[in-house]
Amino acid sequence: MRLRTVVSGDGTRAEVRIDELWRATTAPDVGALLTDPDWRSTQPLSPQETMFEGRPAPVVTAPTKVVCCGHNYRTHIAEMGRPAPEFPTLFAKFADTLTAWDADIVLPGPAAEVALDWEAELAIVVGSELRHADPDTALAGIAGYTVANDFSVRAWQRRTPQWLQGKAFDATTPLGPELVTPEEIDPAVGLRIVCKVNGVEEQTGSTDDLVFAPATLLSYISEFTTLRPGDVVLTGTPGGVGIAAQPPRFLCPGDMVETEIEGIGVLRNRIIPSPNEIEPAPRDGKDNK
Amino acid sequence: MRLRTVVSGDGTRAEVRIDELWRATTAPDVGALLTDPDWRSTQPLSPQETMFEGRPAPVVTAPTKVVCCGHNYRTHIAEMGRPAPEFPTLFAKFADTLTAWDADIVLPGPAAEVALDWEAELAIVVGSELRHADPDTALAGIAGYTVANDFSVRAWQRRTPQWLQGKAFDATTPLGPELVTPEEIDPAVGLRIVCKVNGVEEQTGSTDDLVFAPATLLSYISEFTTLRPGDVVLTGTPGGVGIAAQPPRFLCPGDMVETEIEGIGVLRNRIIPSPNEIEPAPRDGKDNK
Repeated sequence: MRLRTVVSGDGTRAEVRIDELWRATTAPDVGALLTDPDWRSTQPLSPQETMFEGRPAPVVTAPTKVVCCGHNYRTHIAEMGRPAPEFPTLFAKFADTLTAWDADIVLPGPAAEVALDWEAELAIVVGSELRHADPDTALAGIAGYTVANDFSVRAWQRRTPQWLQGKAFDATTPLGPELVTPEEIDPAVGLRIVCKVNGVEEQTGSTDDLVFAPATLLSYISEFTTLRPGDVVLTGTPGGVGIAAQPPRFLCPGDMVETEIEGIGVLRNRIIPSPNEIEPAPRDGKDNK
Repeated sequence: MRLRTVVSGDGTRAEVRIDELWRATTAPDVGALLTDPDWRSTQPLSPQETMFEGRPAPVVTAPTKVVCCGHNYRTHIAEMGRPAPEFPTLFAKFADTLTAWDADIVLPGPAAEVALDWEAELAIVVGSELRHADPDTALAGIAGYTVANDFSVRAWQRRTPQWLQGKAFDATTPLGPELVTPEEIDPAVGLRIVCKVNGVEEQTGSTDDLVFAPATLLSYISEFTTLRPGDVVLTGTPGGVGIAAQPPRFLCPGDMVETEIEGIGVLRNRIIPSPNEIEPAPRDGKDNK
């Protein structure tokens, strides 16, 4: 089963893929759809194909929680010479960070100053309320998986020991293109995860390399807080981020970042300059048409 | 002007204090009330006094964001031998952490293992949408101030470099008892902030000792994300937390923590044992009445 969210009028709507066609539902987004305990038997609004293609929206538009895990790919941790962590390193993002799979990502200042970096991640979308959930319960509470890129403003992230401010710029975390349910894909078998910048493969990994697997992460988080349908958990990024390159490399206006997970889909995000950095068009009084 | 939120039926309601009496409004909580641009001229539902006393609820029950600042009291930073920070250290909490000013705080495990600590804090409640706000705009966007205690589960906080998991246990951040608007109090003049444990003053400070004053903090946060009416910003805690004591001291079942800020009010929170740690009552088949 595959679900997505698209822009519709002033708002958004959830769609379900049936017989190779996307069809509208009554839910305003996939997160809202998941609050219905019977969401697995969602029927489309009409048996007809959705007649117009809505612009993409984040798969979930208003989660109550976005929890992120750092340092979670075994190979990457080993290549950094670190021991495998005993506990997941967790931080939060706000729902306002989420954006569509094809959205432009705005540099929040001059590229060389802000140091915008890529982080391809497998995202889990929660399908049931989870509190003090053991790993089996947590596994059954996974609605599905999608792709995220946790674009990080390294200059802000490194200002203080807590990462939040580099991770919480509005509209810098594309989430999509769609949610794929666990009967279609299983990260434990090893899904290839790749991030390309301008067509060059910068990150590559496999989801069977996670120290803390999806059910383990959800179970752990549910020890301190309640996870609800539509909440999102980002599972960390494999090696190959810009800040770890020698010398470090960061994103520039015009760069195209493609983030793909096998069996789910691709995010395509163009990096665009800060509104303050755009060269004003010459104004010579002539009509340029 | 003073506003508060109380439990009412299955939900909550905001109340406004007029002529020394609390009166009901139509808003479900103070956060919802603040989304009305005319909230400063809120009229009570009826001119009569609220006839029944609702149980307390957090001043704001469902903020879209709770942002917290660490290392923000000058005196405390100096006594730790650190330089004044150039940037605020920020982390996030979830709305689920919020609880009432008189709520019991549940130890999430054996007291000696979890290391629950106190952190008295001045909390700012946002009154306008703020994005790229200069400090003057941010100051005008403050709805008011209230008291928080950022109870911290140190054993979890210290598991990884990111503090979230020690700061995000559900229902561990009392917020209240009421919101006081800026025409009644001004933290810049120095409001006394105190935390007592079982009547003994453990923390004491003054709100004129903040490195990053409320308007500066809001302005800074608004550079990366949108603050909205009802959002909450915690401004950090003065010296005297349990983990800094020699030897460190943490909270135990039965402890009473009182957190007070001059001109706002007092939080009174009893620490209660983990449900798994409560001695079962003897069951000898006799009626103990």
